[in-house]
Amino acid sequence: MNDALQPANSILEREIRQQPEVIARLIAQPQFAQVAAALRAADPRYIVLAARGSSDNAARYAQYLFGIHLGLPVALAAPSISTLYQSPPRYRNAAVIGVSQSGQATDVLQVLRDAAAQGALTIAITNAPDSPMAQQADYHLALHAGLERSIAATKTYTAQLAAFALLTAHLAENSGLFDDLRRLPTFIAHALEIAPVLAARAERFRFMSHCVVLGRGYNYATAFEIALKIKELTYVIAEPYSSADFRHGPKAMIEEDFPVIAIMPDGAALPDMLALVRDLRERRADLTVISANRTALEAAHLPVPMPQGVPEWLSPIVAVVAGQLLALHIAAVKGNALDAPRSLTKITQTR
Amino acid sequence: MNDALQPANSILEREIRQQPEVIARLIAQPQFAQVAAALRAADPRYIVLAARGSSDNAARYAQYLFGIHLGLPVALAAPSISTLYQSPPRYRNAAVIGVSQSGQATDVLQVLRDAAAQGALTIAITNAPDSPMAQQADYHLALHAGLERSIAATKTYTAQLAAFALLTAHLAENSGLFDDLRRLPTFIAHALEIAPVLAARAERFRFMSHCVVLGRGYNYATAFEIALKIKELTYVIAEPYSSADFRHGPKAMIEEDFPVIAIMPDGAALPDMLALVRDLRERRADLTVISANRTALEAAHLPVPMPQGVPEWLSPIVAVVAGQLLALHIAAVKGNALDAPRSLTKITQTR
Repeated sequence: MNDALQPANSILEREIRQQPEVIARLIAQPQFAQVAAALRAADPRYIVLAARGSSDNAARYAQYLFGIHLGLPVALAAPSISTLYQSPPRYRNAAVIGVSQSGQATDVLQVLRDAAAQGALTIAITNAPDSPMAQQADYHLALHAGLERSIAATKTYTAQLAAFALLTAHLAENSGLFDDLRRLPTFIAHALEIAPVLAARAERFRFMSHCVVLGRGYNYATAFEIALKIKELTYVIAEPYSSADFRHGPKAMIEEDFPVIAIMPDGAALPDMLALVRDLRERRADLTVISANRTALEAAHLPVPMPQGVPEWLSPIVAVVAGQLLALHIAAVKGNALDAPRSLTKITQTR
Repeated sequence: MNDALQPANSILEREIRQQPEVIARLIAQPQFAQVAAALRAADPRYIVLAARGSSDNAARYAQYLFGIHLGLPVALAAPSISTLYQSPPRYRNAAVIGVSQSGQATDVLQVLRDAAAQGALTIAITNAPDSPMAQQADYHLALHAGLERSIAATKTYTAQLAAFALLTAHLAENSGLFDDLRRLPTFIAHALEIAPVLAARAERFRFMSHCVVLGRGYNYATAFEIALKIKELTYVIAEPYSSADFRHGPKAMIEEDFPVIAIMPDGAALPDMLALVRDLRERRADLTVISANRTALEAAHLPVPMPQGVPEWLSPIVAVVAGQLLALHIAAVKGNALDAPRSLTKITQTR
């Protein structure tokens, strides 16, 4: 293998490995209490989240966090309503949060501007305090992840999730949630220990041309993000689904040896995922299972064990690490450039 | 070919052909004015839409309709927040609309129940007036589509879109929108005339194993629905994207001969779609283009011309017909059962 294509020489692997320290740094930031206080004072009826790409997957996670812990409904913005149709919705009694690693997403910025012009509370979550989004919003939550140089987002994605989790803990004023958060860097460090297993087994995916990635509830977001990493890095078609949506039609695609990656942390979504995986096993699908649950792992052709004891609400920040490593090692096996996938640039401008 | 697999003998084709009359019947219904009045009186800050499968794609269309014509933000519900996590969000100042062909979706019904218990206005859109959802909601909008016997939804999908369009026209009190709606059955009838072309050319997809389906703005929903029809009927992996999201990572998958289906009606989303299609053409992707625009059609390996003069806001109800026919004929070429795809049932229960 060309040295440049070795995972160990890639910026991507380095950034994946930085995640425990990035998250530890983020949860020590004092800014979240202040933003939570502003949100509490605004008492929004619902939250609008605007984002693209990986940041949109972080927004998907926030929909579950805010719904389950805070009873707050979340609308994922369709930015083109503002940018293409010039008809920004009325954000009465809403708070609007824009998410972007670079803080430069033009369409997301437009949503923040529309909301501000209407007097709605606006918050930006970015890794770039000098960026237009950070400057535009009433409040900026900085990710402090350090410069992300690899095109595929990894540490800024988990930092975005952790930022939403921290904001939730502050809004819920629940000390149990803070206890959970303090254990998060260690959980991520344990998840990284699976790397040698994935490096050794990634060759089995050498000729994979497509797969589906399944997750549910909190880990619906993880299915989307792992599928995105696989597409970006391995160029393999990877379709994300919730186990519920999957039964509404797409299940018809499954035949013998169809590759399925299932994200199955312990928690409320596990029984439904187990039922689906049992069904897929009977249809002789090829199963990769990311889980701490023994029954789930035993059903897999490639079991990817995760650390024990991760609370379900934080499991997306741990489980995605396995998917990042899986995508990295499949890309290496396929001989793809790891830090700069074809056709992509770090900052994508869309309107 | 086995007679049972002939498109002309299928219930599916019959139901696709019924669409002009189904839509003509629906737009003559008086019930929409009353529901619009109730919604206007409630003056919701935002709308929550709950649905699964094809109905969820109809909800995606409604997000653009309500946003652009009414300035009303839309949140697509995550039903598992209620069903798996038993933490229904607080629907303060919201109106909640549940959409289901059968009216029997347990998880969507639960969202309607939660909303009603909190005093929010609830509306059900179904094809089954005696169904639990129709009975539960404050208001029921019946689709009057006649029994849908084929497992793949076609006429109930376009009827759901038309129901949202009608509701929008009543809420906007805009006579121009009603003029547009009256021409809709004729537009759909013209779109059906493409059937012989698709029947003749479908063999080119005999060995297609995967594709992406691209649409934007109003037709983001169409991309999802055509991809779903392809998955259900042809068992081919079909991934839907907006042209914007596609540039944020998935574009890396595109290589020579990668099959792309682009939905490109005239309107605000066309320039962005044209730019993307030009780029994909340079990368030598295989292009199927559903459009009335000559430049768009000329870029295609398989041009699928649509009727001229369709207003963009109604184009999803016309363009999807081409996708239904395409999926039908590819399924026939592959020798698949047309009315009862493998692994699926007409009513899917998820929680």
